[in-house]
Amino acid sequence: MSMEKRRWLRLALQVKGSVIPAVLPRSLFCGFFALIVKLLLDAHYPVSLPLLASLIPNIVLGLLLVFRTNTAYDRFWEGRKFWGSIVNTVRNLARQIWLAVEEKEAGDRPEKVKALYLLVAFAIATKLHLRQEPIDPEIKDFLSPGKYKKLQRMNNPPLKVAFWIGDYLQSQYQHNRLNIYQLTEMHKLLDNLVDAIGGCERISKTPMPLAYAIHLKQLLLLYCLSLPFQMVGQLGWGTAPVVVLISFTLFGIEEIGNEIENPFGHNQNDLPLDAICLTMHRNIDDLISLEPTVHSAEPFF
Amino acid sequence: MSMEKRRWLRLALQVKGSVIPAVLPRSLFCGFFALIVKLLLDAHYPVSLPLLASLIPNIVLGLLLVFRTNTAYDRFWEGRKFWGSIVNTVRNLARQIWLAVEEKEAGDRPEKVKALYLLVAFAIATKLHLRQEPIDPEIKDFLSPGKYKKLQRMNNPPLKVAFWIGDYLQSQYQHNRLNIYQLTEMHKLLDNLVDAIGGCERISKTPMPLAYAIHLKQLLLLYCLSLPFQMVGQLGWGTAPVVVLISFTLFGIEEIGNEIENPFGHNQNDLPLDAICLTMHRNIDDLISLEPTVHSAEPFF
Amino acid sequence: MSMEKRRWLRLALQVKGSVIPAVLPRSLFCGFFALIVKLLLDAHYPVSLPLLASLIPNIVLGLLLVFRTNTAYDRFWEGRKFWGSIVNTVRNLARQIWLAVEEKEAGDRPEKVKALYLLVAFAIATKLHLRQEPIDPEIKDFLSPGKYKKLQRMNNPPLKVAFWIGDYLQSQYQHNRLNIYQLTEMHKLLDNLVDAIGGCERISKTPMPLAYAIHLKQLLLLYCLSLPFQMVGQLGWGTAPVVVLISFTLFGIEEIGNEIENPFGHNQNDLPLDAICLTMHRNIDDLISLEPTVHSAEPFF
Amino acid sequence: MSMEKRRWLRLALQVKGSVIPAVLPRSLFCGFFALIVKLLLDAHYPVSLPLLASLIPNIVLGLLLVFRTNTAYDRFWEGRKFWGSIVNTVRNLARQIWLAVEEKEAGDRPEKVKALYLLVAFAIATKLHLRQEPIDPEIKDFLSPGKYKKLQRMNNPPLKVAFWIGDYLQSQYQHNRLNIYQLTEMHKLLDNLVDAIGGCERISKTPMPLAYAIHLKQLLLLYCLSLPFQMVGQLGWGTAPVVVLISFTLFGIEEIGNEIENPFGHNQNDLPLDAICLTMHRNIDDLISLEPTVHSAEPFF
Amino acid sequence: MSMEKRRWLRLALQVKGSVIPAVLPRSLFCGFFALIVKLLLDAHYPVSLPLLASLIPNIVLGLLLVFRTNTAYDRFWEGRKFWGSIVNTVRNLARQIWLAVEEKEAGDRPEKVKALYLLVAFAIATKLHLRQEPIDPEIKDFLSPGKYKKLQRMNNPPLKVAFWIGDYLQSQYQHNRLNIYQLTEMHKLLDNLVDAIGGCERISKTPMPLAYAIHLKQLLLLYCLSLPFQMVGQLGWGTAPVVVLISFTLFGIEEIGNEIENPFGHNQNDLPLDAICLTMHRNIDDLISLEPTVHSAEPFF
Repeated sequence: MSMEKRRWLRLALQVKGSVIPAVLPRSLFCGFFALIVKLLLDAHYPVSLPLLASLIPNIVLGLLLVFRTNTAYDRFWEGRKFWGSIVNTVRNLARQIWLAVEEKEAGDRPEKVKALYLLVAFAIATKLHLRQEPIDPEIKDFLSPGKYKKLQRMNNPPLKVAFWIGDYLQSQYQHNRLNIYQLTEMHKLLDNLVDAIGGCERISKTPMPLAYAIHLKQLLLLYCLSLPFQMVGQLGWGTAPVVVLISFTLFGIEEIGNEIENPFGHNQNDLPLDAICLTMHRNIDDLISLEPTVHSAEPFF
Repeated sequence: MSMEKRRWLRLALQVKGSVIPAVLPRSLFCGFFALIVKLLLDAHYPVSLPLLASLIPNIVLGLLLVFRTNTAYDRFWEGRKFWGSIVNTVRNLARQIWLAVEEKEAGDRPEKVKALYLLVAFAIATKLHLRQEPIDPEIKDFLSPGKYKKLQRMNNPPLKVAFWIGDYLQSQYQHNRLNIYQLTEMHKLLDNLVDAIGGCERISKTPMPLAYAIHLKQLLLLYCLSLPFQMVGQLGWGTAPVVVLISFTLFGIEEIGNEIENPFGHNQNDLPLDAICLTMHRNIDDLISLEPTVHSAEPFF
Repeated sequence: MSMEKRRWLRLALQVKGSVIPAVLPRSLFCGFFALIVKLLLDAHYPVSLPLLASLIPNIVLGLLLVFRTNTAYDRFWEGRKFWGSIVNTVRNLARQIWLAVEEKEAGDRPEKVKALYLLVAFAIATKLHLRQEPIDPEIKDFLSPGKYKKLQRMNNPPLKVAFWIGDYLQSQYQHNRLNIYQLTEMHKLLDNLVDAIGGCERISKTPMPLAYAIHLKQLLLLYCLSLPFQMVGQLGWGTAPVVVLISFTLFGIEEIGNEIENPFGHNQNDLPLDAICLTMHRNIDDLISLEPTVHSAEPFF
Repeated sequence: MSMEKRRWLRLALQVKGSVIPAVLPRSLFCGFFALIVKLLLDAHYPVSLPLLASLIPNIVLGLLLVFRTNTAYDRFWEGRKFWGSIVNTVRNLARQIWLAVEEKEAGDRPEKVKALYLLVAFAIATKLHLRQEPIDPEIKDFLSPGKYKKLQRMNNPPLKVAFWIGDYLQSQYQHNRLNIYQLTEMHKLLDNLVDAIGGCERISKTPMPLAYAIHLKQLLLLYCLSLPFQMVGQLGWGTAPVVVLISFTLFGIEEIGNEIENPFGHNQNDLPLDAICLTMHRNIDDLISLEPTVHSAEPFF
Repeated sequence: MSMEKRRWLRLALQVKGSVIPAVLPRSLFCGFFALIVKLLLDAHYPVSLPLLASLIPNIVLGLLLVFRTNTAYDRFWEGRKFWGSIVNTVRNLARQIWLAVEEKEAGDRPEKVKALYLLVAFAIATKLHLRQEPIDPEIKDFLSPGKYKKLQRMNNPPLKVAFWIGDYLQSQYQHNRLNIYQLTEMHKLLDNLVDAIGGCERISKTPMPLAYAIHLKQLLLLYCLSLPFQMVGQLGWGTAPVVVLISFTLFGIEEIGNEIENPFGHNQNDLPLDAICLTMHRNIDDLISLEPTVHSAEPFF
């Protein structure tokens, strides 16, 4: 129990991954402003205005912050779902290719393996595309050198990889190694993969409507800058640290929203896309190590 | 960090795209009303009624505003999803047409290209239809002149373009260039496109129920006009600016709801439909630049 | 801007479509009760009990009202979605029938047109069914006289129309005018239509659980009737108008919930079902005016 | 209007179907406790502790209650959706069986009718299964005596009925009375029915996590038992009735959650499963009364 | 009623399954801190600062806690849905295999039975995988010894079992015991099973974004440690117990979130995965006891 306790405390005091670095300057600025207000009060300016407390109804600010929080988290979770969908579809498509594409000649098996690795290449290309990074050597192992070069010149690389997978499937059907019914189903799985690209692009390219972002920031600023006037009369020099704490609390919630709204980056609060891609790679490797009875002479059980 | 800070501040103070222009007159009106109340007070009318604070429970107003906010944002986001669905389906349908429709004669390839551009025409026609704008030259490049003329006379142009795409697919099947299984799947993708039109129409033609819109405006008005009576006794001449700020806060939230509820316009807070259509155009161009192995003699890998 | 402003105000003051007529009597009753309390106070009864303010925590009442609001709006929007689904499916099914059912004899085309109008009949029959109105002449144009008569004797008319559509499709397949694959897909679209009937019935026949409805009304009544006791000591004769306003606010929110919960009626806050049916009619008319190339000798482009 | 008014009032005062019977004892207990506190105060014990008001923040309790409410209602509505899905699927499956299964011999029609009634038997068996009631004569009319007996020995009767329907369909295909494509689609509809059983079981067998249930009850108890200490100083003997009312309000909300969380019982706040089953029965009867043209010699129109 | 009452009370006072053991140390620590503050006050340090009440707005903390609660419960319920999906799909797949795979030779039936038990093995393997437990004898009865050994060496055992089921199905098709249409549908059901693995992995491997977890803990700590300063002036020695109670309330809500966020463990608040697996086992046993008419000579009715 005490270990659990310590872990809880450690997390509560952890700076890395928290919003403290991003939010501290803003909060200190508000504290600095509070100091000025205190000095003005000491110079007998009439800056003690406790009635300003009703300036921005607490409930309105609170609910807007939570709206911000919910919206950002929904995007984070929706992004996670799309990557979950990529994982699932890659597994399903790989299994079906491995089982349903017939092997008639010696070269069919290696070609199939290459097609399976295209699925991993798809996932990596999607990751790089969402991070707006160029095609890098990470993806090289899963593509023929010619395809690797072509990919570097594309606007939307994952879409291209999806095209190649579809091309492979269609050509297997053309060569009578795949029946039309299973081809059709595999094309649908491929559609799922393309849907996932589109879904992730939607999340990363459509920010929260500008008017909300601005209005929320305006309210936060008004609220935090009105705090010293409310409190200075009673808290005196204590106003500054209290204002820092309150503004830290509020800016922090807004900042978390900004950070997780687009969850495809390299940040600690983003999705572990590298690990997810690695999982897919390992799943494909495992699959290739299995000999399906369909393509062998052994009995099933 | 300080750059980030400055960006944050710049956004908080930005007027363009914010609701300030729309909401300022209403807020100033409330401030003006507050001045009148102050003058009445000075003329010894009994207008200082702090108990009015309980007139409209804060929580009720706050929750209604947030209900408004959530509902409007849900529509915004649902509209974005339908456009995401159009992007995905156009990509999938284009890929499948490019791969699965066989090319038997010399004229088949150019006809296929024309069919792919019909998909772009569909997206543009949907955009214009949702904005209630006439068919304009923007769409001309993606249609034969005859179709362009016909489209100008239609009630629901995107529905017509979908019909032409379906017609093309069905005739490919009739001419044995497309098998029945893949035809059926493509018809389903076409159904998705038509579903997206219907979904967007639903959003743009079904406003929030009238009774809510009215009741919320009534509450806002009551609330803002009761503020001076509550405050004038204590804030004096300060009542006016404070009432302006509070009413700005509240009207602003309602106004954002109004603005993003129908997200298909040209406004800064609307969806970037032009950019989305351009993306589809570029994706189709990229696709056409690729030679599928299915229709060539080369080996796949 | 000033026009916009005036529209905003006009809406805020609009009575038609608002809940004022339904809610006013209840609110006036509460105000009347407040007068009695004031009279009792003047007769020196100890009815001034400001502590009753904590009788029903504001937050509990507020959240319950919003729960009511959200639930009712969700039903409204879900109902709208089902009608959107009917629109989409009618369009898709019509397009597919028009394209895929072959015309072998002279009489096939008129029969096809009749089948398309059955889709409009379906929508109208659903509308009448949800409004619990008898089959009326509005639907007559879209049905043969024999079918019109039969429909009048049915418990669930739209279900019958769906059956006829399915019967038509199946018989086209029997007569080799429709292939089995597209028949199967059309049966699925028909399933969607039947799902939409069921969905709308679900909304209109399953009210909010009784216990919620009762508990919310009890809390509202308790709250509004306790208001005079809280306020009479300080507001005097002003208690009555203030109580009227507060109870109007609260009853209004509950009443909106009641009104939009079942959105299939003729009310101003209900869905525009007549307009939606008309849209479908017009879409079908447009479709029939188009000659598909599949059934003609002309080239596609 | 006055009738509407009276209905509103009648509902507000209705005891049957409300949570009053369940919650009254608990509330009276709290009132009794308040009396004791008052007596202690009169005996000069220091039990007047108005500061306890901050013991449980109002907002926390309120939000937890609403969380409870939302969760319970979501289950209620999800359960309703599953039954809606059963209604829809039974209608669709019945229509497709009636249309698509060919009748070659004299005995085929009566067998088909029996198969349709199996669908009604499925619905009733699901109802009984969810209510944990044994197979009773209600279901007898829709099953052969042999099947009725077998069903009584089963763990999961509706699953068995679904198996029989699938068996019927598969054997129609075996005997060339049903083509493979429509068989496949019907199997999918059957999957929907089985999904609905599973979904309802999920709702009725997975209560709200225990920790929530306990924590909420603890908070409610703490809150209600701290009320007398807060109020006794000011309200005196009035503390008891006020505490009864407040605790009634709060316990009531929790109790409604408990009642509708599992909506498949016989309670007034449960789903009208008997009526829903009757609807399906009537729909099937109507369907059987219709002669499809597919199986007759008449022209369609 | 009084029994119901007693059950309600017993649950409210139950320790097992509640968060009391986890949260008590933290709460007592806060109480201890309150004692120190009281001692400092008695030593005439100026630690009575009632204005700190506004340090963290109640509404912000409350809404964040409820956000935490909703998010965690959504994961719990989503996890339950995936397991419901596994139950449904296992039932559907089992029924379809039992009905549609033809039995041509004597050995076909026992092989089919083995394939059905693979479905149970799939569920158990998923359970063990999610709990990060090794393959244990529980699964042994449902697998051949060879497969059992292989499974122990796999990274993702349930994925392997899904592969074997797909392999079985594909080989039945290869040997003409299953038609291609039903094979395709069964592959889709298998895809559902694999989707469920991926979905559960998503829930168990993607915690709430770190920044939220940290910020919420920081706010809770700040709030609870500021309580003594607010209260000590008025409550004196009573501060400690009151602080313990309040912090217990708040920490408890956060802790429940932590406990149910990953619902696949052995904890009392986790999903009853063992019971769910047992249900599937029993359903398969029941199914095997039924003789389908398709594979027998008897008439159906």
